[in-house]
Amino acid sequence: MSEPIRVLVWGENRHEQLEPAVAQRYPDGMHGAIAQGIEANLGSRVRVRTTTLDEPEHGLTEEALADTDVLIWWGHAAHGEVADEVVERAHRHVLEGMGLIVLHSGHWSKLFVKLMGTTCTLRWRTEHDRELVWTVDATHPIAQGIPHPMIIEEDEMYGEQFDIPTPDELIFISSFSGGEVFRSGCTFRRGHGRIFYFRPGDQDFPTYFHEGVRRVISNGVEWAHTVRPERSLPTLLRYETEDFYNGHGYGGALSAEATAAAEQRATEPAGAE
Amino acid sequence: MSEPIRVLVWGENRHEQLEPAVAQRYPDGMHGAIAQGIEANLGSRVRVRTTTLDEPEHGLTEEALADTDVLIWWGHAAHGEVADEVVERAHRHVLEGMGLIVLHSGHWSKLFVKLMGTTCTLRWRTEHDRELVWTVDATHPIAQGIPHPMIIEEDEMYGEQFDIPTPDELIFISSFSGGEVFRSGCTFRRGHGRIFYFRPGDQDFPTYFHEGVRRVISNGVEWAHTVRPERSLPTLLRYETEDFYNGHGYGGALSAEATAAAEQRATEPAGAE
Amino acid sequence: MSEPIRVLVWGENRHEQLEPAVAQRYPDGMHGAIAQGIEANLGSRVRVRTTTLDEPEHGLTEEALADTDVLIWWGHAAHGEVADEVVERAHRHVLEGMGLIVLHSGHWSKLFVKLMGTTCTLRWRTEHDRELVWTVDATHPIAQGIPHPMIIEEDEMYGEQFDIPTPDELIFISSFSGGEVFRSGCTFRRGHGRIFYFRPGDQDFPTYFHEGVRRVISNGVEWAHTVRPERSLPTLLRYETEDFYNGHGYGGALSAEATAAAEQRATEPAGAE
Amino acid sequence: MSEPIRVLVWGENRHEQLEPAVAQRYPDGMHGAIAQGIEANLGSRVRVRTTTLDEPEHGLTEEALADTDVLIWWGHAAHGEVADEVVERAHRHVLEGMGLIVLHSGHWSKLFVKLMGTTCTLRWRTEHDRELVWTVDATHPIAQGIPHPMIIEEDEMYGEQFDIPTPDELIFISSFSGGEVFRSGCTFRRGHGRIFYFRPGDQDFPTYFHEGVRRVISNGVEWAHTVRPERSLPTLLRYETEDFYNGHGYGGALSAEATAAAEQRATEPAGAE
Repeated sequence: MSEPIRVLVWGENRHEQLEPAVAQRYPDGMHGAIAQGIEANLGSRVRVRTTTLDEPEHGLTEEALADTDVLIWWGHAAHGEVADEVVERAHRHVLEGMGLIVLHSGHWSKLFVKLMGTTCTLRWRTEHDRELVWTVDATHPIAQGIPHPMIIEEDEMYGEQFDIPTPDELIFISSFSGGEVFRSGCTFRRGHGRIFYFRPGDQDFPTYFHEGVRRVISNGVEWAHTVRPERSLPTLLRYETEDFYNGHGYGGALSAEATAAAEQRATEPAGAE
Repeated sequence: MSEPIRVLVWGENRHEQLEPAVAQRYPDGMHGAIAQGIEANLGSRVRVRTTTLDEPEHGLTEEALADTDVLIWWGHAAHGEVADEVVERAHRHVLEGMGLIVLHSGHWSKLFVKLMGTTCTLRWRTEHDRELVWTVDATHPIAQGIPHPMIIEEDEMYGEQFDIPTPDELIFISSFSGGEVFRSGCTFRRGHGRIFYFRPGDQDFPTYFHEGVRRVISNGVEWAHTVRPERSLPTLLRYETEDFYNGHGYGGALSAEATAAAEQRATEPAGAE
Repeated sequence: MSEPIRVLVWGENRHEQLEPAVAQRYPDGMHGAIAQGIEANLGSRVRVRTTTLDEPEHGLTEEALADTDVLIWWGHAAHGEVADEVVERAHRHVLEGMGLIVLHSGHWSKLFVKLMGTTCTLRWRTEHDRELVWTVDATHPIAQGIPHPMIIEEDEMYGEQFDIPTPDELIFISSFSGGEVFRSGCTFRRGHGRIFYFRPGDQDFPTYFHEGVRRVISNGVEWAHTVRPERSLPTLLRYETEDFYNGHGYGGALSAEATAAAEQRATEPAGAE
Repeated sequence: MSEPIRVLVWGENRHEQLEPAVAQRYPDGMHGAIAQGIEANLGSRVRVRTTTLDEPEHGLTEEALADTDVLIWWGHAAHGEVADEVVERAHRHVLEGMGLIVLHSGHWSKLFVKLMGTTCTLRWRTEHDRELVWTVDATHPIAQGIPHPMIIEEDEMYGEQFDIPTPDELIFISSFSGGEVFRSGCTFRRGHGRIFYFRPGDQDFPTYFHEGVRRVISNGVEWAHTVRPERSLPTLLRYETEDFYNGHGYGGALSAEATAAAEQRATEPAGAE
């Protein structure tokens, strides 16, 4: 009935090229496995594409982002190689209303860090910990159909303190065999966009073939898709008294006189002051 | 008994130089009026200094920030002139535990925008609106001693939608003669730092001589002052199983083998792939 | 495709019987006007029924509530006449997963007060104030299609402080001609149920014929309808180690020995101690 | 300098009477051990008293509560024996501004359940699990001086889902040897009162002699103590336009005419309608 949700899965795709074990584990790339999980769950309700770091503009051109309802981000070893200009662009699209799902090591991506404003650091260990993902918010759409707890037999450990702003909604908390805990499913609203961070998933484990993990990501896609009719960036505007609906563009912080004074001051030789 | 809270009031100090009416309204600068209000309320419990945009490094050297418990920020016409390097430095100090109070038009400062991750835009009008500041959270220390409502006879109007993350605590909501509303007192925790945004205050009105406004800012100073014993930046560390207290430094995302492969790949001529 | 949402609009229906002006304003009762607004917006996506205080068990029998996905509550003059037993029953259904929309003066209903745990008091005035309803959370489904601001030409004033727990989501803030502000659209999750409080609406004004107000309530119905497959009350259960999915019923706080001791103690003559 | 905080530790004191092992573990009662921990940490900054269920009015007379700044609640086996009238009284004092710390099994006390509005149920097990208490909010005063994690060698397990409203602040998350997690340090503001729920502590383990647990409770006392100058219950009042500070008492929901009509209707024989 309604249009399918347009999903773009962004994969860093470096471990797959550099580490044979990862390539074997994820023969279609990690982005490929993630995309297949969404298609398996949502079928005709989505149109899923993938792209990677090595594409021109990392595959995140203005056109590609404008054609995306929900962007999914997996990166790890090459956060620093993502061009600042592309990060700015994706950031703007989120604030305009594009949904964003950040997975696992994407916590340290430039895009997520810019949206959060914090360091997004944590404690970690790769040692075959079992992860139990407990649902804290049973009414949340992202938690529907997920066992309580969801068991992931082996995965990398992430532990608190996770340096993020307090989430708008805390959906999942994970524990690990070693005893650590982590806020592993969190939502954030920023501008007109909805963001879902989900912890599980690592290049060293087959996490993105786990049925429950795939279901959570799929639920996240449906949740992050905006209900607003069109995208727009929040903008600063002046409104006259009793005219609530017609804002004027911003004309600068200074009066005409002060602007002239400022300009004059700037052109005077420094010694004149 | 305890050490006084070290407060640094940062003023842009441009309107005062460019607009005679502002200079007359705030003969010691807006930063001067703000500083005096804090001293009047907190006396020996604080040590207050001021600095401005035109100082070297805008007066926000590493040394100055390390000597500051709570930074207060007022800027408006010259947000763009604040050096990115100084913004990075102040941002880091907030995440390490320095308190921050952002006043009025500081909503659009580089520092606040970086901490929030959003556009921080709003609607506005300068037309002699009366502002009523209503307390929503009666138990909050920042609201103590403030009339409900607090009346500001004339001030600039700021209206929703204010594009910020949902505040951790919403303390005040303002209304204006024209009917607009604004979340005018908000707290945010970021890293180890506490941030308080407070709306009232404009160069065109004597808002920083208003007794209630001064009391709110002073309450904010006491609230934003960290209770942590020392400043530190949240850091990503590896922890071995059962060793909860000794983290290792991060050694990079790739194994030694993969790093070597990546390096080789980087040095090969492009045509070889 | 999916089953229609089963909506039950509960109206106190006393003003309509006791005040001719109200009866004239709302010829089908206030509950009738509310129901018609939902049908007008949601059509075949809902099945709407109404009931009132004067029905046996106030029309809120176990059977009626079990057949309801979202309950809408309007009451004012006769909160005290609602039987405690019925309040307990409706409260339980909310915790089990029934959605609840509380309108206007329903803030002081026994049901809402029991769910909030606070006094739910506020300041008020009936004096033909104009109300402006501003959207604070532009991404929320309940805000879709609502003008910013939504103008209600005349309505009763409600002002802060509204003694409620901090809402999970703050969607709307209202201002009134007199300058008061109010958190007029708030969500709360309690147990497995979702609750939406919406302020506008009074017996002395034709608020429930206002197109925007009707749209908000209709959006609220879709939002409050649970996504969980079946209703259940959260229950305290014991789980053995590594058996995460099979809880035992609670067997009492004391050991068998201690229970016996407690019973003996209770039957001994008081002087024996 | 300032007056000491008046703390009242309420203990159910039944396990101590009925189970010899508990009496041996806590020779001064659990309330005694809790009180000693607060005195050890806060010294002259507090005046600590204790009382128990078996006292007249459970030791919670109007006079006693009026003389209390922060009430601490430990109950377990006899929640049902606490008189409803006393619960109402304590509930009112919390809404008026008395601080409340609810410990461990107090999650199911009438008072906490009434304040939360939910079932306050959870999953549990008594099996010598090790508990790790992780700090999520490093800037919170209640977390100061607490190791990260805080290790409790043996304690009862409480696991999610904990059926409470979303806390205003989530300070601690616990994990247990068995893999369960729990939101073990939560704050809630209700009316003019501040509430802190803290999980650790059981009659079967010497938890209230644990130095860190004692420190948390002591930090909680300082946090929960209101900063408002005097206690008052939020009250519904009418305010005339432009008279922001003088509310009138509530005169009833109906006009004089409607009240008369309602009274007449009530006295008429049922058949007359």
